[in-house]
Parts: sequence; structure tokens; C-alpha cells
Amino acid sequence: MRIYLAKDPIAFHKKLGGKIFVQSKLDKITQKDIKLIYTPGVAKVCKEISKNPKLKYTLTSKSNNVAIVTDGTRVLGLGNIGPDGALPVMEGKAMLYRKYGNVSAYPICLSTTNKKEIIDTVIAIEPVFGAINIEDIESPKVLEIAQELDSRLNIPVFHDDGQGTAMVALAAVINSLKLVEKNISEIKTVIVGSGSAGYWITKLFAHAGCKKLVVVDSKGVIYQKRKNTNKFKKEIAGITRPKERGSLHECLIDADVFVGVSGIKNLLKKEMIQGMKKNPIILALTNPDPEITPQLAKQSGAKIVATGSYNYKNQVNNALVFPYFMRAILDLRIRNITLDVLYNSSIAIAETLSRKELSPDRIIPDISDKRLQSRVRKSLKKSIK
Amino acid sequence: MRIYLAKDPIAFHKKLGGKIFVQSKLDKITQKDIKLIYTPGVAKVCKEISKNPKLKYTLTSKSNNVAIVTDGTRVLGLGNIGPDGALPVMEGKAMLYRKYGNVSAYPICLSTTNKKEIIDTVIAIEPVFGAINIEDIESPKVLEIAQELDSRLNIPVFHDDGQGTAMVALAAVINSLKLVEKNISEIKTVIVGSGSAGYWITKLFAHAGCKKLVVVDSKGVIYQKRKNTNKFKKEIAGITRPKERGSLHECLIDADVFVGVSGIKNLLKKEMIQGMKKNPIILALTNPDPEITPQLAKQSGAKIVATGSYNYKNQVNNALVFPYFMRAILDLRIRNITLDVLYNSSIAIAETLSRKELSPDRIIPDISDKRLQSRVRKSLKKSIK
Repeated sequence: MRIYLAKDPIAFHKKLGGKIFVQSKLDKITQKDIKLIYTPGVAKVCKEISKNPKLKYTLTSKSNNVAIVTDGTRVLGLGNIGPDGALPVMEGKAMLYRKYGNVSAYPICLSTTNKKEIIDTVIAIEPVFGAINIEDIESPKVLEIAQELDSRLNIPVFHDDGQGTAMVALAAVINSLKLVEKNISEIKTVIVGSGSAGYWITKLFAHAGCKKLVVVDSKGVIYQKRKNTNKFKKEIAGITRPKERGSLHECLIDADVFVGVSGIKNLLKKEMIQGMKKNPIILALTNPDPEITPQLAKQSGAKIVATGSYNYKNQVNNALVFPYFMRAILDLRIRNITLDVLYNSSIAIAETLSRKELSPDRIIPDISDKRLQSRVRKSLKKSIK
Repeated sequence: MRIYLAKDPIAFHKKLGGKIFVQSKLDKITQKDIKLIYTPGVAKVCKEISKNPKLKYTLTSKSNNVAIVTDGTRVLGLGNIGPDGALPVMEGKAMLYRKYGNVSAYPICLSTTNKKEIIDTVIAIEPVFGAINIEDIESPKVLEIAQELDSRLNIPVFHDDGQGTAMVALAAVINSLKLVEKNISEIKTVIVGSGSAGYWITKLFAHAGCKKLVVVDSKGVIYQKRKNTNKFKKEIAGITRPKERGSLHECLIDADVFVGVSGIKNLLKKEMIQGMKKNPIILALTNPDPEITPQLAKQSGAKIVATGSYNYKNQVNNALVFPYFMRAILDLRIRNITLDVLYNSSIAIAETLSRKELSPDRIIPDISDKRLQSRVRKSLKKSIK
């Protein structure tokens, strides 16, 4: 059954010839079945839905269909490789959606990178889907797209790179703080990167009660009157420390937590960690190569180190949450993915591991943890009360 | 396994809860697999495709993906019921694509009925698909859309309502002529309806050597200088009998073949058939209710009667061909669905039944005929030489 596997990704993909397929729910189709699933019987179903559109949620696959929409402008750490190059990632994501969330995810890789055209296309294909997953689109365009779609569609818009990463990062920090016995309201957190992940991490950490937040990007610390900014960076400036200035090294002095979503390999240096408060927590989430290797971070005095990569222990990757999160969003018919929804999901992820299971090398559950689905669903129910 | 089946289409659909789903090709996914199908391993695949776009045909599912695109303006015989109401038909079609053609078909039901927006949307989603199936869009808009997409996309555009119906209709007539011992170059064929099916049937029959063609629509016979026309009807007028005029009844006098794609139930009357030549061939293809019931047609003297409905024997329905045809188009990488491609497919369908198997109640093979796939593929190979 597994004979087709290969160690090299190219050979592996060639042997599979595409990683997903559209399957029929009936394995056999008789002549009688055709009269029900197709013409003439299906006409009755069409007419009923046309009269009462809500029935599409029970009589079609809409309620379980998610479009993974990308323009291929910011794929993994590879940058703008276009819609063709993006497709293998979207198919991989669709596999994980199926495997862990029992969700039907359709890759939709777009031949346009124009903001208006992307928005128009998603609005045009809305009828088939129960939710939209925006993926691997460059920032800040992606934040504008997600915001506008959220206001114009009737279905939820999930921005996994931003919101998914923020959920796992917060869960990782919540559990790390238990291990080092610190309180989120007292810690100083330095977030490096102000793309969509940095934006959502900052907003979610503030929502979770983290008061001392600093965001640094390639132009330095973000603050209200800085040049080289946009409306999303201005929003970030409104919830971070107004008077913080200086280099990343300077910002990290006396910081408790480093969260890297910078896109820059080996950005974090030994001496920067050495300047942090006791028991530094390092989340170096850039893929495929983190801001610092776990080995060097530990040598530099980090108490807890996590990366986004499956090449290291302690993975903090949005793959952990998106299938479970989407399953719950679809089942509970949650229309708006608010900060409260994201926060409740983070809490559920963090609390899936008992205090006994927690260790510096295991701060959040594994993607295959069978408790995750029920925990996330239960926690999200709070958001709809 | 089949316990969920019900006789009523609504109950049947409710129990299935959507007829299709997106499935992963790996039934188990290990941590090692994730590193290949998703980050970091997948990055290598993305980069390769980005460098050499042709690889998307072997390293992703693109070569097997078909978008079934509709705006819901002309669904079955139901008219404009919108994209939600259309979804059950598209899902049914996707089931048949999977079952008989091993094709992954994605229903794409659009929230717009605007021609330009439909075209723009299909162009935007092109990267994921190996072919486009245009479906259940009102005519003549659908003909304009298919024509423009065909010139602007890099993948084949198949217009099943038009081209699929024409293929099965021609196959049915070719075999019927064997039974009544007439030659296609000598017969008079009256086609009723000048929507997309009428348009393609007329073009394909002319291509197949049928010289005496008459097309009648709700305004009467189509001819060059008629009012109430459009560029497609003008094109039809260029290949049909220039001097034919009169009512449908009058046109049918001395006709050998009636092909109904009129959308009008019970349009064909007893006396009309009685005016036809010896051994009349009646294809009453309107769904769900044909232009005449087979029983009445036979009573009126028809030698061969077929309908598009699964409620009667002798089905001439495009469902017979679209899965096999698309499979061959994808496998052979046929870019342009020309009249010659359609003609070769019709011949293959017709010749699947041997002379001994042919009878007035069995003029073309059943959808489940296991010979169809290899015959159609083999015949289409001729088109690419």
C-alpha cells in the first residue's frame, strides 16, 4: 500500500501524480441512482434549494467545502513563485484538511495578483463554499483582501497564515509561561515581522492580555509616526509600547518572549538572547529556516525554543490548528472569525496538554493529537453564545 | 453499505449530505509524509514547477482537474434557478465524471450572470485545471463565453450542453441510419431549437455530411435575412437549406430525422410524424419531458424513437459521453475541441455497438458500456495526428 513512497519530494509527488482527487460518495452508481443524483430526479432538489436557499447546507456539499485561495505571491519562504508553483502547497494543505478535519478543500490558485480581481473572483465562486481560506498572498495586500472579503461575503473568511499562526503562537506562549511561571500580563514580547502573521500575532497577544508588546520589522520598531508604514502597521502601533525604539538587540533587552515571523534565516544572534530576561522563550517561526536553530538558541540560554519546521522538535506550525479550527467553524456555522474566536481556539490548543504532559520540548500538542478536535469545538462554542 | 439510499430525491440527497468530497491520495499520513507533502519538502516541488511550468502536469493534480462552471441561468429544463439551485446538478455531474471517466470535477457555481465577469473568473481560476466544462448557462451568452474562453485560455474548453449533446445525437443518427438503410448525405434532418445544443448539432451534422439541414426555433425556420437572430443563428443559416420556409409541420414533410432540443414538452404531434418519409427517426431530446413520448411517437409511425430521459429506453443523453470524452481529452492533451474531434468521438460511440447489437430500441451504448473508454480514446488519437 505504501510502496509508492519515495524519500525525495519530487519523486514522491511524481509517483502520486497529484495529492488529492474529487471522489463520489457512492462507490457504485446504478441506473436507478442516476435518476436520483442526476436527471430527472435531481430537478426536485434543485427546485427546493432555489425556493429555500438554506437547504443548500443540508442537500449539497457546500457546508463542508473550503476554497484555499492563493495568488502564489508569497508561498512558504519562497516568495512570489506564481499560481502553478503554489499548487503543491495547496494540495498538501487540502490533504491535511481532509485527514485531520474531514474537510473538503479545493485549491484555487489564481492567474491574477490584482487585488480587485482576486476579490471579485472569490465573490464569484462563493456559492459552492462554506468558508474561504486565504493563503500565501503577499502582505499587506492579503490583509486588505481578507478584510474586504469578510465584509462582502456571507461565509467566514479564514486567513491561516495570519490567524492560524497567531493561534498556535499564543497557545505556545501560554503553555511556555506555565513552565517558567510567568504571567502574560507582565511579560515583554518582541515580535519580529509585521506581515500578516506579525499583524495577527500582535492583535491576538494584546487581546490575550499581553501589555508589553514591541513589533520590529526591516525598518526597525513600529510606532505611530514612523515612515514606511501602512494602515495595518498603524493599527499595530496603536496597541504596542509607544516609546520603544532602537535595534532588535536593544528591544530584546529584558524581554521575556521572542516571536519570529520575519522571513529571515539566522536573524536571531546569541548575544540578543543573552540580553533577555531569565528563562527566555524563543519562537523562531520562519519557514523553512528559522530565525535561529534550536541548538544555538539553547546554547545561548533560551529556556524554551520552538520553530515552525517539521525538521525540529517542538513544532509551532499553523498546520496543527487549521483543520480542527475549520471543522469547528463549519460545524458551528460561525460567520465571523473574531479575536475572541481565535483566542478561545488558542486556549483549547494550550489546554489539550495537561500540566504533566508539558515540558520545554513539548509546549503544544502534536497535529495528530486526538483530543484536539473536541477541545477546539467545545471552546469555540463559547464564542457563539 | 447502501442502507442510506432513499427513493425520494430530497431524502436521498439529505442522507448523502452532498454527493462528492475532496479526498487525499494517502490514506495514512505520517510525520515523515508531512515533511514531503507539506513544509519543508514540498518547497522543492514548488521551485521545480516555478522553473519549469510543464511539470505541473505530472507533479500536481492539474492534469486531472476539471471545473464545471455554471451561473445557474439554464439548469436542466428549470431555467434560471441560480447558482445554489444548480449545485446538485454539478455534483451529480462530478459523480459521473469520477465514476465513468476517473476525472476530478470541481463544481464552480458562480454568483454572477454577467458575461465578462464569468469569463474573468474562469481565466482567474485556470491554473488549477486541466480543462473547463461550461454548463447550464443560457444561450446565446454561453456560446459567446465558450468562444472567448477558448481563445484566451491555455486549456481545452468543453461545452457539454452543446458539444456533448451533438456528439450523442450524431452517434444516434449514424446508427439509426444503419437500421433504416439510409445514407447521411441523402437524408433531410429537421432540428428544433437553436440554443447551444441546436447550434452544435447543426454544425456537427453538417460536418458529418448531412446536406439537407433545417433548423426551426420559436420564431420559425432560421435563414440568413430573418429578424430575431444573432451571430450564431446567422452561422447556422449559412449551413442549412437557404430556401426552406414554413411551419414545423411543413418542414417535417419528407424529412427523415427529427432532432428536438426545443425545451418544449409535447411539441411534436402525431400528424407531423405522419408527414415524414418512410421509417422516421425521432430524437426527442428535451429534458425532463421530451417533445413527444416514445409511445405516441411509435403509434404515429416512428421507426426509431429516442429521448434524453432516463425514464425511457433508448437514452440519448450527453451523460453517455462526457466522462469518457473528457478522459481522452485530458490524456491526449487535446487543446482544441474541434468539429473533427467531436466527429471522431461520435463515430467511436456509434461503432461501440456492433451491427448485431443494434436494434430500434438500442441505437447507442449504455453509459456503463465498458468498451466506450478505449474506443473514444482510440478515435480521438486520430484528431491529433
